[in-house]
Amino acid sequence: MKTKDKAPISSEPLTGSRKVFVKGKLHNISVAMREITLTDTVHKFNGSNKVETNPVVTVYDTSGPYTDANYKIDLKKGLPRLREEWIIKRGDVEQLTDISSTYGKQRANDKNLDSLRFEHIQKPYKAKAGKNVSQLHYAKQGIITPEMEYIAIRENQRIDEVKNSMLCQQHAGNSFGANTPKNLITPEFVRNEIAAGRAIIPANINHPESEPMIIGRNFLVKINTNIGNSAVSSSIEEEVEKAVWSCRWGGDTLMDLSTGKNIHETREWIIRNCPVPVGTVPIYQALEKVNGKAEDLTWEIFRDTLIEQAEQGVDYFTIHAGVLLRYVPLTAKRITGIVSRGGSIMAKWCLSHHKENFLYTHFEEICDIMKAYDVSFSLGDGLRPGCIADANDAAQFGELETLGELTKIAWKHDVQVMIEGPGHVPMHLIKENMDKQLKECHEAPFYTLGPLTTDIAPGYDHITSAIGAAMIGWYGTAMLCYVTPKEHLGLPNKKDVKDGVITYKIAAHAADLAKGHPGAQYRDNALSKARFEFRWEDQFNLSLDPDTAREFHDETLPAEGAKIAHFCSMCGPHFCSMKITQDVRDYAEKQGVIEAEALKKGMEEKSKEFKEKGSEVYL
Amino acid sequence: MKTKDKAPISSEPLTGSRKVFVKGKLHNISVAMREITLTDTVHKFNGSNKVETNPVVTVYDTSGPYTDANYKIDLKKGLPRLREEWIIKRGDVEQLTDISSTYGKQRANDKNLDSLRFEHIQKPYKAKAGKNVSQLHYAKQGIITPEMEYIAIRENQRIDEVKNSMLCQQHAGNSFGANTPKNLITPEFVRNEIAAGRAIIPANINHPESEPMIIGRNFLVKINTNIGNSAVSSSIEEEVEKAVWSCRWGGDTLMDLSTGKNIHETREWIIRNCPVPVGTVPIYQALEKVNGKAEDLTWEIFRDTLIEQAEQGVDYFTIHAGVLLRYVPLTAKRITGIVSRGGSIMAKWCLSHHKENFLYTHFEEICDIMKAYDVSFSLGDGLRPGCIADANDAAQFGELETLGELTKIAWKHDVQVMIEGPGHVPMHLIKENMDKQLKECHEAPFYTLGPLTTDIAPGYDHITSAIGAAMIGWYGTAMLCYVTPKEHLGLPNKKDVKDGVITYKIAAHAADLAKGHPGAQYRDNALSKARFEFRWEDQFNLSLDPDTAREFHDETLPAEGAKIAHFCSMCGPHFCSMKITQDVRDYAEKQGVIEAEALKKGMEEKSKEFKEKGSEVYL
Repeated sequence: MKTKDKAPISSEPLTGSRKVFVKGKLHNISVAMREITLTDTVHKFNGSNKVETNPVVTVYDTSGPYTDANYKIDLKKGLPRLREEWIIKRGDVEQLTDISSTYGKQRANDKNLDSLRFEHIQKPYKAKAGKNVSQLHYAKQGIITPEMEYIAIRENQRIDEVKNSMLCQQHAGNSFGANTPKNLITPEFVRNEIAAGRAIIPANINHPESEPMIIGRNFLVKINTNIGNSAVSSSIEEEVEKAVWSCRWGGDTLMDLSTGKNIHETREWIIRNCPVPVGTVPIYQALEKVNGKAEDLTWEIFRDTLIEQAEQGVDYFTIHAGVLLRYVPLTAKRITGIVSRGGSIMAKWCLSHHKENFLYTHFEEICDIMKAYDVSFSLGDGLRPGCIADANDAAQFGELETLGELTKIAWKHDVQVMIEGPGHVPMHLIKENMDKQLKECHEAPFYTLGPLTTDIAPGYDHITSAIGAAMIGWYGTAMLCYVTPKEHLGLPNKKDVKDGVITYKIAAHAADLAKGHPGAQYRDNALSKARFEFRWEDQFNLSLDPDTAREFHDETLPAEGAKIAHFCSMCGPHFCSMKITQDVRDYAEKQGVIEAEALKKGMEEKSKEFKEKGSEVYL
Repeated sequence: MKTKDKAPISSEPLTGSRKVFVKGKLHNISVAMREITLTDTVHKFNGSNKVETNPVVTVYDTSGPYTDANYKIDLKKGLPRLREEWIIKRGDVEQLTDISSTYGKQRANDKNLDSLRFEHIQKPYKAKAGKNVSQLHYAKQGIITPEMEYIAIRENQRIDEVKNSMLCQQHAGNSFGANTPKNLITPEFVRNEIAAGRAIIPANINHPESEPMIIGRNFLVKINTNIGNSAVSSSIEEEVEKAVWSCRWGGDTLMDLSTGKNIHETREWIIRNCPVPVGTVPIYQALEKVNGKAEDLTWEIFRDTLIEQAEQGVDYFTIHAGVLLRYVPLTAKRITGIVSRGGSIMAKWCLSHHKENFLYTHFEEICDIMKAYDVSFSLGDGLRPGCIADANDAAQFGELETLGELTKIAWKHDVQVMIEGPGHVPMHLIKENMDKQLKECHEAPFYTLGPLTTDIAPGYDHITSAIGAAMIGWYGTAMLCYVTPKEHLGLPNKKDVKDGVITYKIAAHAADLAKGHPGAQYRDNALSKARFEFRWEDQFNLSLDPDTAREFHDETLPAEGAKIAHFCSMCGPHFCSMKITQDVRDYAEKQGVIEAEALKKGMEEKSKEFKEKGSEVYL
């Protein structure tokens, strides 16, 4: 790896946006958000103008300090260690004199790797003997941590400041099995959800750079993005840029699925520069350590890998501990067998040794590691269906029951847990997945990959899966793992990553609207008002992807003047329905309410039905 | 318009596909379909190869003769007049000596237009005095027309020929309010659905070139695409290519929303060369005739426009007859008012004249025109919501009730009817739309635009709407009007049209799977089997867009050899989960059933639960 002169890190604020900070009340914290500034609306009345100020819109911001105009990026130093003081203050951690993992020490002592290595590696933190540093542990004791208050403020997106606005009105939601809060999120509500196991805060004490976020079905639906290193890539900036890029567009967590020789060093660079929680699948690296031979895996190698990664700061581990030997034969008649990499690795190990999955048999030892760093479990669905035909079968649901059993064990250790879910599921079988997960896994948060609702559209699986993702998000899934257009076909490029992220932001937001998350509809309302009033720039800036919206508009009507024109390219000045509606409204205004009422009453022959509804008008 | 030397018409068959024809039994008809040829699977056993032949997969084909390798395209002559003989044989039509519309005659007699005009215009057909030539009229009398038999065969996609295949197994569907057939579609089933008004066959007697298709919730979900002429376009081929392009990728019907001076002539070219039913919104052309001034519209101008277009062969008309004067004030407090162009035109007319909508007051006269040519109604939802906030409001549902009233009037005249629906609706309010439409409109087919499930993603509204479209299709919507990425922003280009079509094919197919349409899952199963067996070319050819799937694959692994490699670019040879699953399966095969059972029994300490399920293994 080499440092290039010109950093390719995406760092400009999104257009029309600036970074703002909201202070905490319980703790000395500053919660980062994105504020979108809008232009005024000019109403024309009887020849004079009436100016209406449109208030700023504040939105959830996953992009970290990179979009802060006042922040100077230095990848070699890494991001500010936002949470370090909070962690130390709790008095239950100690800084180790050296890293604990054998493999990690080998890498650290290898002079050949000096040029690859992050320069400012700190000694890792670990819970003091007998201590448990998980957010679940604190929550159960009634402690509201700074992380919890940060999250409460963050989830509210300053909606309290506009709650009297007409635009704050929204449809009542319809949440299934969930209990979506009706009002603003409080720090105590966050604590209670964590204590109940219904939500997790992935927050390794060795990743203090990450901004606290929560995964639970009574909060905003989150999305995860996956990145992997590429064989031909050579610069640090390129690897970090992948993470920054996906956070820029809305990735809430990041899974680093890198492979190859230098994953230990690459991971360090990513974590030190990543503003969101990082997850991994440790069995991938363990497999590399035994040269790709699943049968050569051992508990000892896996254990060392867990410690290696926990001390680097990985916030959650995907662990395929539910792939039990007895479930493996249940997959033999499937069309696509076992499609999870981790699942197939463990299946192969089980069959080769005629033994039970060592992740299952050593589960309590894994819990002991997790709680010493506050690494959360993402219990992997190694037997998830890989096609529509295999959905909701005995292998899948058998494993889910085992994941429920493991959830209880993790909770016994106060270790945070979420559960991974499918995969490929036709629409009418999606809800069964959610219902069964809630029941079998005792309401631990669900984290699903899609699901894809048909198999016949490779090249468009971000879309086949967004349909399923939106639905399962509505039903109660807390986090959606994104799928890119390259799924099943190849490695995503930068455009694919962005397409995947935006598509999943759509699915997550559609779910938030359907659940009736407080304030979720405010941004839709503000954008639609801008659209109706031909405030084109505001419409772009309020959208999930201002750049693309602006570019598409400009393809047809590129002139700057067109962006304040009171019509758009689809219909032209004569046909524009929005313009005509404004005429209708102006007309109604001019005639006045009394005239409008008279007009209605004049329609006697058709008015009976109308009168029954008449009372709804002009309220 | 000028004819270019090199026609840009897309006419190659899709890769791996050929056109096939299935004969009728009741009538002398040949039903066009697309057959995808697959390669063999080679199983390796104890060192020897066992070859498994994979049968062809036949799919529904909307592309018309253009993808028939034996067909020679001649846009100047138009497509073969497939249905003309069927129409004449019924003995209830006469060929007119001249066109009936005043405007049409003016255009026909204008020498300046000779260069623009389709050369082989035939005199129009019309029902003989006192006759009704609608498919609904025939169906009610118990007549199974050639169109009905064509549709029955077409919908079945030759699934009967593979019904004993393992791949023909599928999940039981879950249809709402619908009564999805469990078995093959019969001609009598088609007739009965038409007679009940639950389905329509848009089939103007003056568009005999179109291949019969059906819109009803007990059939495959259909999609509509919109095209419009572009101001700068100059060639006939470019206009026709737009239609051919959208049919090529799966558009089931086509709405021609062209505007400007020469729409009459452009429409003729499109209809003569279009293999799918064509719809229009006649009020758009009527408005052009009064120079864009809604208040100058008259029933006489509109009536002449209906006749003009009916005699050209338009198969369905969007008529905004439900925009009643009393509903208009209900939109005044909306965020986005009236967003339907037709709706806003009629609202403006109503307010300007203080009179009831003339489409409503002249509705029976419109019916008289429709039944003389078999034009179907698409009753427009002029008051559909234009944003999430306005969904399911009094204006929208008031209009829907009126559309139900009009449906009954149309049926009294044996005129076919479908009902247009929204628009922008959050997920949890979608089902109410479907339920209310079924109830208020007496189960007439529903035809919805999306709906979009959030407003915040301009540039991605094909996706925001595909989520809603898939869901409402599952709930019972018969046809989905596509949305392109340019929605709200500009005019779609060719790529946008294809993106819109493929996205909507995904939504429609996801709905077919969820409803359990007979044979719907066969293509998914065949593709997934190909995927699992690393038959890359088969996977591409079975997909909705083989070109994109192949291109994406080749970006990462371009070599031809890679397409028969037993791994893919995502994981490489070591990690490939599908390869490992094959190992697992081979292992199970080698050990034999007895060994596998023994293996299971050895796990005594965990076996209780397993034994209860054990009987499901190896069945």
